[in-house]
Amino acid sequence: MIDLSLNYELTKKFIVKFIQEELKSNNFEHALIGISGGIDSALVAYLAVEALGKENVFGVLLPYKLSSKESIEDGLKVVKDLGIEHEVIEITDIADCYFEREKIQDKFRIGNFLARIRMSIIFDKAREFDSIVLGTSNKSEILLGYTTWYGDMAAGIYPIGDLYKTQVFGLSKYIGVPESILNKKPSADLWPGQTDEDEIGTPYSEIDQILYLYLEERKTKDEIMEMGFKKEHVENVLNRMFSTQFKRTLPPVCKISLRTFGHDFLYPHDVFK
Amino acid sequence: MIDLSLNYELTKKFIVKFIQEELKSNNFEHALIGISGGIDSALVAYLAVEALGKENVFGVLLPYKLSSKESIEDGLKVVKDLGIEHEVIEITDIADCYFEREKIQDKFRIGNFLARIRMSIIFDKAREFDSIVLGTSNKSEILLGYTTWYGDMAAGIYPIGDLYKTQVFGLSKYIGVPESILNKKPSADLWPGQTDEDEIGTPYSEIDQILYLYLEERKTKDEIMEMGFKKEHVENVLNRMFSTQFKRTLPPVCKISLRTFGHDFLYPHDVFK
Repeated sequence: MIDLSLNYELTKKFIVKFIQEELKSNNFEHALIGISGGIDSALVAYLAVEALGKENVFGVLLPYKLSSKESIEDGLKVVKDLGIEHEVIEITDIADCYFEREKIQDKFRIGNFLARIRMSIIFDKAREFDSIVLGTSNKSEILLGYTTWYGDMAAGIYPIGDLYKTQVFGLSKYIGVPESILNKKPSADLWPGQTDEDEIGTPYSEIDQILYLYLEERKTKDEIMEMGFKKEHVENVLNRMFSTQFKRTLPPVCKISLRTFGHDFLYPHDVFK
Repeated sequence: MIDLSLNYELTKKFIVKFIQEELKSNNFEHALIGISGGIDSALVAYLAVEALGKENVFGVLLPYKLSSKESIEDGLKVVKDLGIEHEVIEITDIADCYFEREKIQDKFRIGNFLARIRMSIIFDKAREFDSIVLGTSNKSEILLGYTTWYGDMAAGIYPIGDLYKTQVFGLSKYIGVPESILNKKPSADLWPGQTDEDEIGTPYSEIDQILYLYLEERKTKDEIMEMGFKKEHVENVLNRMFSTQFKRTLPPVCKISLRTFGHDFLYPHDVFK
């Protein structure tokens, strides 16, 4: 197994600086985070408070009726430990209004719809508090596409978008995220007892190794299998990555003119400032 | 005034081919469109039927209580004229559930929230009908940023994303979009009597000229004013473009590793196929 751990002091400083500079260049003083009770949003909240001060960070908790009690408790633990302003907004009535009328029972449709309703509220609250929305997606879930496009993936900036899940754990431990959050299994919290790893079919420890070998060491699928990773896991991880590339690029535009958004009119946000 | 009209027969063929190839390369047979009653979604629906056949195109109408009667009538005119399957899904109860509880009266927050709720339903329906979502944003509104990020801007592909509003009118007329849609003033339909041009403060005819001169002829702001465009209009248009560049790029990721989504791991959707 390759050691994916980082110099966490340096990583922390780097992300803190990133948050500060992105807010500055976009003329924001405040940041808003959807706090799920999981490790990703907890880590982003701790980093944001380090970067901006607790008075400039807002947390929004958006429980659905099937969210576990522990998720809400852990989310509250984060905002209380950090001392940041927060709101709890139940999304059950809004979501069920649609699910019941349309008789939706497919768990993928329910999960995606909830993620998008949460996004809609997070961006609305961000406007109320004049804040930028900090994304909580990590590199592993972005590469697997294990995320809702235009849902939990929708954000202003991605502070931990280049950290594998293993590194999210490492940095969270280093930075002092509460034990109960560090110790529970990652879950999208869509039904009781759900875990990401059961649903994906491969544990994160292997996911991260396979992604790292393919992406950063540029190994082929065959080479990764020769290193001892099971064919089913390698194929599972790489196929998920291949089939979800559309989530990681701008949607294609039918190019007609000389300069087209997404093709040749694509600058960083702050070139125009 | 520069003539922005195109060879509309060629433009139509080009976009039709684009829709066909994008669906093929993404393994989709069906397309879904949110039909607002306005010209953009009408044009996309006509192009989609030309590309895929009427049996492969679905329309979704998503009226809110403040949507004008004409919008719904015009939307129904489109789906009936094309003979495509469609659903009408009222979003009033879902949206008001949130607005009333949170006491939201700010028209921008209401407009953005409605756009995101519509997006959430459009993507849910796209899953139900195994369809790709066709975006209906045009180049003028994308460049002005006169669109809701992760709302009406959220789509799988942008068939008319490189057509200025003037060209949307030209192609719509050429292709036979109903007269009542061609003749009404563009509106986000957020309250009775609203028009885009009143809200933006500059008519589309000038907006398109200014954008074209800046982007495609690479004129400076001063040169555009010397050509006879009023300072207030040039500044209004260019400032709107400058301040909304974030909507036209992927959100920044804090780069830590060798290969990072949005930086150096950013291929077209179908490289992996």
